Amino acid sequence: MNYNIVPLTELVSQFERLPGIGKKTAQRLAFSILEQPPERAKKFAEALVNAREKIHFCKCCQALTDMEICGICMDSQRDKSVICVVEDPKDVMAFERTREYRGLYHVLHGAISPLDGVTPDKLRIKELMARLSSAEVKEIIMATNPTVEGEATASYISRLVKPMGIRVTRLAYGVPVGGDLEYADEFTLARALEGRNEI
Amino acid sequence: MNYNIVPLTELVSQFERLPGIGKKTAQRLAFSILEQPPERAKKFAEALVNAREKIHFCKCCQALTDMEICGICMDSQRDKSVICVVEDPKDVMAFERTREYRGLYHVLHGAISPLDGVTPDKLRIKELMARLSSAEVKEIIMATNPTVEGEATASYISRLVKPMGIRVTRLAYGVPVGGDLEYADEFTLARALEGRNEI
Repeated sequence: MNYNIVPLTELVSQFERLPGIGKKTAQRLAFSILEQPPERAKKFAEALVNAREKIHFCKCCQALTDMEICGICMDSQRDKSVICVVEDPKDVMAFERTREYRGLYHVLHGAISPLDGVTPDKLRIKELMARLSSAEVKEIIMATNPTVEGEATASYISRLVKPMGIRVTRLAYGVPVGGDLEYADEFTLARALEGRNEI
Repeated sequence: MNYNIVPLTELVSQFERLPGIGKKTAQRLAFSILEQPPERAKKFAEALVNAREKIHFCKCCQALTDMEICGICMDSQRDKSVICVVEDPKDVMAFERTREYRGLYHVLHGAISPLDGVTPDKLRIKELMARLSSAEVKEIIMATNPTVEGEATASYISRLVKPMGIRVTRLAYGVPVGGDLEYADEFTLARALEGRNEI
């Protein structure tokens, strides 16, 4: 093939490396860049480098931030007596979208999974313990994923934290809001029954 | 919301401006960049700027290239007596993928559409005429899209070219290979019948 435009092939292959982007989509995206004014490509390029360089983990809660301490940890309005422990920085954003939670977070950056080589020392558990020993924390909400690994992590941390006299809670299991009972799996339904509340 | 990470929001919005990428996908893509080593983001950024700056239209055929004259126009192996006229640079790639066509191309960069303000002078028709007057071209294959605009463009150009004693052909209409007759529209089927061949 003598019609190989190297810069285009390179751009297509960069798009192709993104998750969920196949060959055809990568080509479509690359062409869309060529059709835009050059400043657009430059801005996109700057945004990429900027985001990767400036965003790191909050020194306190290990969530994503472009400052030393993230906006949530610095916010004096937030309830410093509750810490919601999550696996992933994206989970922080999911909770923030609820606009219900007013406490702090702690991101573990994973869940215990010995088969994948993720032992407790690979997670940000020491950082959590350090926060607990110094601050006026009254409750830890374990908001790890409802999976085997998430459960294991939740119970591991609760065993560490409970002796410190801090309350440890777990997210409620049940049927998702707006879901259809017909399609709920048996484990979820069993948990929803178990955790039923007076109305 | 006090948890707004500006560089991340900016990256998400850049991804969101790509065609077919929604809010959720843009977030997923932005996070994937954060999870990769910084060199990946830098390479991606370079590929974006590089592609946009280096790729322009071939002086001869108006297809995309990073050189002055594209690889196809420069290739001495190709049949210079046939020019395939297409609407879009992507169409050149589509034909190249067939590995059947060995002639040259000419990209119009659009099709005549007076309602959208695309008159013949907005297309690269003069450039095509200039090529025809100088070179040993024997045939023009009109490979504009099988749409009203593509048809209009094909017949407009054929009226210009035929008086020069050059053969003008049009792509065959018919049922697509691998398609299902049941789902073929009536116009396509009628054309396929009309253009039937002896077997």
